[in-house]
Amino acid sequence: MISKRLRGSLDSSICIRDIFEEGKKMAAIYGSENIFNFTIGNPSVEPPAAVNEAMKEILDTEKPLALHGYPANVGHPEVRRHIANYLNGKYDCHYTEQGIIMTSGAAAAIVVIANSLLDNGDEVVTFAPYFWEYKSYVETLYGKLVPALCNMETLQPDPETFEAALSPKTRFVLINTPNNPTGAVYTEESIRMVTDILKKKQEEYGHPIYLVSDEPYRKLAYDIEVPYLTHYYENTIVVYSYSKALSIPGERIGYIAMESCVQDYEDLIAGMTASMRYLGYVNAPSLQQKMLLKCVDASVDISIYQETRDILYHALTEIGYTCIHPDGAFYLFLKALEEDDTKFCERAKEEKILMAPGTAFYGPGWVRVSYCVPADVAKRSVPAFKKLYDKYQK
Amino acid sequence: MISKRLRGSLDSSICIRDIFEEGKKMAAIYGSENIFNFTIGNPSVEPPAAVNEAMKEILDTEKPLALHGYPANVGHPEVRRHIANYLNGKYDCHYTEQGIIMTSGAAAAIVVIANSLLDNGDEVVTFAPYFWEYKSYVETLYGKLVPALCNMETLQPDPETFEAALSPKTRFVLINTPNNPTGAVYTEESIRMVTDILKKKQEEYGHPIYLVSDEPYRKLAYDIEVPYLTHYYENTIVVYSYSKALSIPGERIGYIAMESCVQDYEDLIAGMTASMRYLGYVNAPSLQQKMLLKCVDASVDISIYQETRDILYHALTEIGYTCIHPDGAFYLFLKALEEDDTKFCERAKEEKILMAPGTAFYGPGWVRVSYCVPADVAKRSVPAFKKLYDKYQK
Repeated sequence: MISKRLRGSLDSSICIRDIFEEGKKMAAIYGSENIFNFTIGNPSVEPPAAVNEAMKEILDTEKPLALHGYPANVGHPEVRRHIANYLNGKYDCHYTEQGIIMTSGAAAAIVVIANSLLDNGDEVVTFAPYFWEYKSYVETLYGKLVPALCNMETLQPDPETFEAALSPKTRFVLINTPNNPTGAVYTEESIRMVTDILKKKQEEYGHPIYLVSDEPYRKLAYDIEVPYLTHYYENTIVVYSYSKALSIPGERIGYIAMESCVQDYEDLIAGMTASMRYLGYVNAPSLQQKMLLKCVDASVDISIYQETRDILYHALTEIGYTCIHPDGAFYLFLKALEEDDTKFCERAKEEKILMAPGTAFYGPGWVRVSYCVPADVAKRSVPAFKKLYDKYQK
Repeated sequence: MISKRLRGSLDSSICIRDIFEEGKKMAAIYGSENIFNFTIGNPSVEPPAAVNEAMKEILDTEKPLALHGYPANVGHPEVRRHIANYLNGKYDCHYTEQGIIMTSGAAAAIVVIANSLLDNGDEVVTFAPYFWEYKSYVETLYGKLVPALCNMETLQPDPETFEAALSPKTRFVLINTPNNPTGAVYTEESIRMVTDILKKKQEEYGHPIYLVSDEPYRKLAYDIEVPYLTHYYENTIVVYSYSKALSIPGERIGYIAMESCVQDYEDLIAGMTASMRYLGYVNAPSLQQKMLLKCVDASVDISIYQETRDILYHALTEIGYTCIHPDGAFYLFLKALEEDDTKFCERAKEEKILMAPGTAFYGPGWVRVSYCVPADVAKRSVPAFKKLYDKYQK
């Protein structure tokens, strides 16, 4: 008796969480130390101490009624101002308090943007492979998600598939770099290609195409610059989450950021403000907002992720696996050893290796290895990966 | 360039927050002590000390990575179990951990339920006057809100308008008691009438009609019992928020509760779990969830609201105003002294009284007085109300 809309999508979805649940069952049978679970993107590095310190200080010093009361739908003014100033200093931008809308994480931000922009049948283009929930966000709010497959040799956006995916119905392009599931950081060259095509198409269609940059992994980039997209394209809307930078995904805090040069800026802010209410968010949690006054530049120790990435990348390529060097996030995209990535994942389970099939991310033939696990687990998994590889050589 | 869906609703909405903003402007001109602002439902009684104590203890004792990490979409198991046990003891129910889904407040819960149940054109019936955002929640998620006007002499549900509002397209009935905007607590007699009609109509239509009970004001009831609806109707889905009971509306925490006798129970849980993700919620904020382990039965001091209610109710009726005795929440519904409630509100502003027009709540000819203000403000407003009344006697 649930809605037909939902029924259809539930039946067709491959839920990574189910695989994760299966991992828990396997751990119960074989012992968790004997399972190599690379399925879910749950941060494994401790939050910086500043998070708890900030929360306690706020609880000790602010008046409870004001602290826990309703802020404006768009968030506390001093928090929004603080974030605007931080971004302006860090990325040489021109944000003001007005252009920052506090949201319950990046997922909420994307849904708020979708509700603000999409009428029935409008299209959203994203680069595939992509985070599978994108489809749910867009389709729940009346849109259609159109994937533009990356060049699978480089995992970078491809000009031909991208241009072919755009249409007069495209309201926004959703870009995610560093990328989930591939770990790729889109190069400045890729960004220029994407934004050049967008500028051309905007002119051709006679209406704006917004570039929505979903950046929860921005801080998790290893010895590489992640281009800041406002410098390449005026109609950029940045979506950010502190889930990964501070290892606090359960606390649901992030923001939408727009410079005033974004077309229909005031109108968009009004629409997003209303959408915060219409979608039942009302406002992002108040304590988590205030915490950012003291943690806006804090970060987890990313060298821990980097170490695990290096162990796995070197070991897997040495064994003979194909994978593109992942420069960010905590994902490594691995070419399956047979065409059917789901079957490959099933076979890997025999070696107690759990991975997410690329088909779930519109990246068939590949698998996602989430390396947000202790370095020790990565090390111990290497013989199992070797055994799996050898099985395919017979 | 925002979506046409949103544009239409923005243009037609009467936003109470705008009136509240106007109040702030008036306060700047005349001094806040000279303005009687009864427009917005922002709790004015201090949160119980247990809230901050619980949060600090959790921050001091739990491991940060687990505390701030992803809980299940439906919430922390121990929190859900704790709430189930509490409700079973308090209201003699039969909830289990599985039947409790933690949400970012009651608004989020209603949107999650709407997304789980509504296909395009499905209907939701609610008793008018109603909280104006109901329309936005339902219509954003594909439904149509159908109001059933209460008996305006008693502010209780009316059997004739209710039965007329139901149709084979009705997926759920949204009920809110204690009520925003009227302050009415629906009597046991009203509840029996409503649920008897629902039982009859379910049979007639051959499919379930869920009764969604939105109860953020349950704890704010003055010397009166608020019937617990699961005792009257099996297909009841309870929606709760701690915003008012604990004066923490900025923190966004609440739940959905279903007993296993609810039709299609497992299916609904699967749909709601998916909807938590599809709507971008992912999960209710983790720290706020855990806080409930220590605050599930805590409450603000409701005698403070009751005192203000008594001052206003007695003074206003003595002057000659018509209002029905408000037994719960912090709202008093007052009959306007002219047919056009918006004009009446405008005229009240001349006396520095700010109220919300009933038209915004589908209760034309009346106005909402939010008495979540200091008792002193209520007392000092009485001469202004008298002057306003006298103006209409000429």
